[in-house]
Amino acid sequence: MRIAILGVGLIGGSIGLAARARLGAHVTGFDEDDAVLAAAQARGAIDAAQPDIVRAVQAADAVFIATPVGALPATAGAALVAAEQDAVISDVGSTKRVVAQASQDPRFVGGHPLAGAETAGVAHARADLFEGATWYLTPTATTSGILYERLHRILTGIGAQPVAIEPDVHDRLMASVSHLPHVLANVLVAHAAATLAGGGERLPATGPSFRDATRVAGANSAVWTDIYLANRDALCAGIDDLVERLGAFRRDLAGADAQAIGSWNEAAARHRRALLEAGWAGGAVNELRVSVPNRPGVVADIALALGRGGVNIVDMALSPSADMSQGVVALWVRGEEPATRAQELIAELDLPVARA
Amino acid sequence: MRIAILGVGLIGGSIGLAARARLGAHVTGFDEDDAVLAAAQARGAIDAAQPDIVRAVQAADAVFIATPVGALPATAGAALVAAEQDAVISDVGSTKRVVAQASQDPRFVGGHPLAGAETAGVAHARADLFEGATWYLTPTATTSGILYERLHRILTGIGAQPVAIEPDVHDRLMASVSHLPHVLANVLVAHAAATLAGGGERLPATGPSFRDATRVAGANSAVWTDIYLANRDALCAGIDDLVERLGAFRRDLAGADAQAIGSWNEAAARHRRALLEAGWAGGAVNELRVSVPNRPGVVADIALALGRGGVNIVDMALSPSADMSQGVVALWVRGEEPATRAQELIAELDLPVARA
Repeated sequence: MRIAILGVGLIGGSIGLAARARLGAHVTGFDEDDAVLAAAQARGAIDAAQPDIVRAVQAADAVFIATPVGALPATAGAALVAAEQDAVISDVGSTKRVVAQASQDPRFVGGHPLAGAETAGVAHARADLFEGATWYLTPTATTSGILYERLHRILTGIGAQPVAIEPDVHDRLMASVSHLPHVLANVLVAHAAATLAGGGERLPATGPSFRDATRVAGANSAVWTDIYLANRDALCAGIDDLVERLGAFRRDLAGADAQAIGSWNEAAARHRRALLEAGWAGGAVNELRVSVPNRPGVVADIALALGRGGVNIVDMALSPSADMSQGVVALWVRGEEPATRAQELIAELDLPVARA
Repeated sequence: MRIAILGVGLIGGSIGLAARARLGAHVTGFDEDDAVLAAAQARGAIDAAQPDIVRAVQAADAVFIATPVGALPATAGAALVAAEQDAVISDVGSTKRVVAQASQDPRFVGGHPLAGAETAGVAHARADLFEGATWYLTPTATTSGILYERLHRILTGIGAQPVAIEPDVHDRLMASVSHLPHVLANVLVAHAAATLAGGGERLPATGPSFRDATRVAGANSAVWTDIYLANRDALCAGIDDLVERLGAFRRDLAGADAQAIGSWNEAAARHRRALLEAGWAGGAVNELRVSVPNRPGVVADIALALGRGGVNIVDMALSPSADMSQGVVALWVRGEEPATRAQELIAELDLPVARA
């Protein structure tokens, strides 16, 4: 297995360390910054440093693009031109709208590991960074099933849990659970600073709720300006929704509607529990076998249907028939109830499916 | 010293435990709930349980009202009618607007300890709950200096750090650092729940920023509905300010103004540092002696000027002259620089002040 990594910082470097240690892969790397490239090699994150994208991706079975979000579209375009026809190419950007164009290529699958936002740089790269981490993948109708399966296998091999999701749903989701919390932290800090400035030199004891609510305020500007801009459509929609909800609460407050405020507060408690207690089910691993026609997008359809249904694919394997006209996808799913649900979801796609 | 406590839950019970243990006070208690009153006595938070407010406050030197915020105005009114003419009466409500009327009485000083929001009930009461805690006091122009000093001495005696503040500044401050974080947590949870419901049964991995930002979502509805309503003017103004700031960010985002977004983010980082690193200075304790005319409000003026200037009064003592026409207030202030600042602030009030 040959893997190329474009951009060898924290995430790229960690992919390299994990792929070398856990998959025995040969890893080539490229970075715009020569010092970073040298550091990655010194750290053992890559076997070979290459001076440009073309040479880095040559003969690679899989290419990971781990540049800053702003550089993603251009790097993805260059990688698709240079990479082999049977290579799978993916990225690790925190929004998927920016790689929508690249995703039209059957070889490209957008990706986003939920790991490692706090510390940047290859110096912090670790082989176990992705252990147990959700790794979103955004296959489309044109995605090659064989290449998707290869990417899925690499990711589980380095310890991650791949979950398929539609690109736009991914971006809305990230706006809700990550980008908007950052925006709210920033505006709350700005508001508090302005309020307290009005009180002169007063230095109040700030409560724990303020500390918690503003913990991520002013996170790394270079990284976050890119993220905000890359996800600006979903983020603007999210802001509109929040402003509307603030307005509704303000109306109840101005009207002194204790009952409405109480219900609103109860709902928040209930929803937070539901959101945070949500998780993947445990249990034994069950194998499902699905017969699939050899057409683009069919593996993506299956992965997305299961991702949408909250079923985690622990592992997958695709076996083409001898004449390549069809094949079998084996899927491993943890837990009895999720396996049953997976079977139903796949049957709804009109694909023959059986428990092994 | 005889202390009466009206409402003997977590805060009232803790005042009782601390006053008995640390000041050797005799504590009487009243609660609307007989079971709570019995539990407070069993726990040793009060010496004597009384069946009504009138009997509870009889002969008390100080009365603390620690009912839910919604019951504060009525309880304060009843206490002022029933209490002795030389008793100091205070409350522990988280907004001070609701006791504005009571504060017209020279005997009443609004109060708010920053302690103990997480667990309710006298079962969790502790004698050390206020150790080192900021305890806001909101004296007015009519407040008796002698009674304010007595209250200040009781609070330092139970381990708290009293800080004088204007009632409306207190309420705006609390809206910023406590109530708005709760409101934002609730609307963010509601938004996320609605967004994810659109994605079917999907159960995503929620990030640490979401967890932090929503930690206080749906806090105790009975308590928080009261708090929101009690502080609704400041809270509505705070919401308007936040909505305006969200709108400004949204405009920069829609216009893809990377520079504006970067600056906004940098400012948030800077402001959060300034807000959270702010604190009271350390150092040796210095004594200041202030000559004061015997008129209502003068001690309040001093306390408010120092509170506004960020100077913490470690302790204070008031010595009236023999004919009661004037007196001396001794103030102890920690640190060299704060003592100098205190001296300047008091001189600005046209009061003679000297370092002892």
